[in-house]
Amino acid sequence: MTMASIFTKIINREIPAFIVAEDDSNLAFLDINPISKGHTLVVPKKEVNYLFDLDDDTYLSLQQFTKKVALAVKGVIPCLRIGTAVVGLEVPHTHIHLIPLNSMADFSFSNPKLSMGKEELEEIAKKINSAFQNL
Amino acid sequence: MTMASIFTKIINREIPAFIVAEDDSNLAFLDINPISKGHTLVVPKKEVNYLFDLDDDTYLSLQQFTKKVALAVKGVIPCLRIGTAVVGLEVPHTHIHLIPLNSMADFSFSNPKLSMGKEELEEIAKKINSAFQNL
Repeated sequence: MTMASIFTKIINREIPAFIVAEDDSNLAFLDINPISKGHTLVVPKKEVNYLFDLDDDTYLSLQQFTKKVALAVKGVIPCLRIGTAVVGLEVPHTHIHLIPLNSMADFSFSNPKLSMGKEELEEIAKKINSAFQNL
Repeated sequence: MTMASIFTKIINREIPAFIVAEDDSNLAFLDINPISKGHTLVVPKKEVNYLFDLDDDTYLSLQQFTKKVALAVKGVIPCLRIGTAVVGLEVPHTHIHLIPLNSMADFSFSNPKLSMGKEELEEIAKKINSAFQNL
């Protein structure tokens, strides 16, 4: 028996998250330790540790969903563009970081994390979800 | 008239590069300022500045090609996994970084660049290309 990942628990609504988008195979929610405002994680519902171990269908579905989520985030958060990162040495469940960027320096996981309140995160999640629905 | 990007010049073989893989729509080559051994750039042949401005077909073709290149790099370079990054505030032509990782700390563009000779880069490129052909 293996423990469900923290992301599987979010997918199953066993622990709360600021969800911004969902489809049959994928979920997107705000990173609660954001390195920039609107920092979002996109995960496949299938619990696979390593991005490039995903089967092609799941992988392409995830990438297509990620594009749509990125467009929604960009529509809500003032930024030059949305950067992406997959590191994956922390949580053993594939996740794509979407990071709103205004400069090259914004793209660093060693930057101090933003301190954001529950209300602000909730409001941002709602706005992104609304933009996602309207794409 | 706009200038061709440095990546378009590589695609057109107007400037040299350590090419590791190619298909009709995409090209992959070694980053000449690698942050880790095997650091590879994947670009669509279509010169589009921002990843999420790519049309869906070009975008999904790029992501599928990237997966295959990542599997080839992982087969050649000893590492835990291949990380990915898209920042895109330097060269105005979409490019996906593939970065062999052994730790979270390897994933940082502020890390000192590796100094690698032409022969070593050439040898790595050949090995990755051979792994790519055999996938």
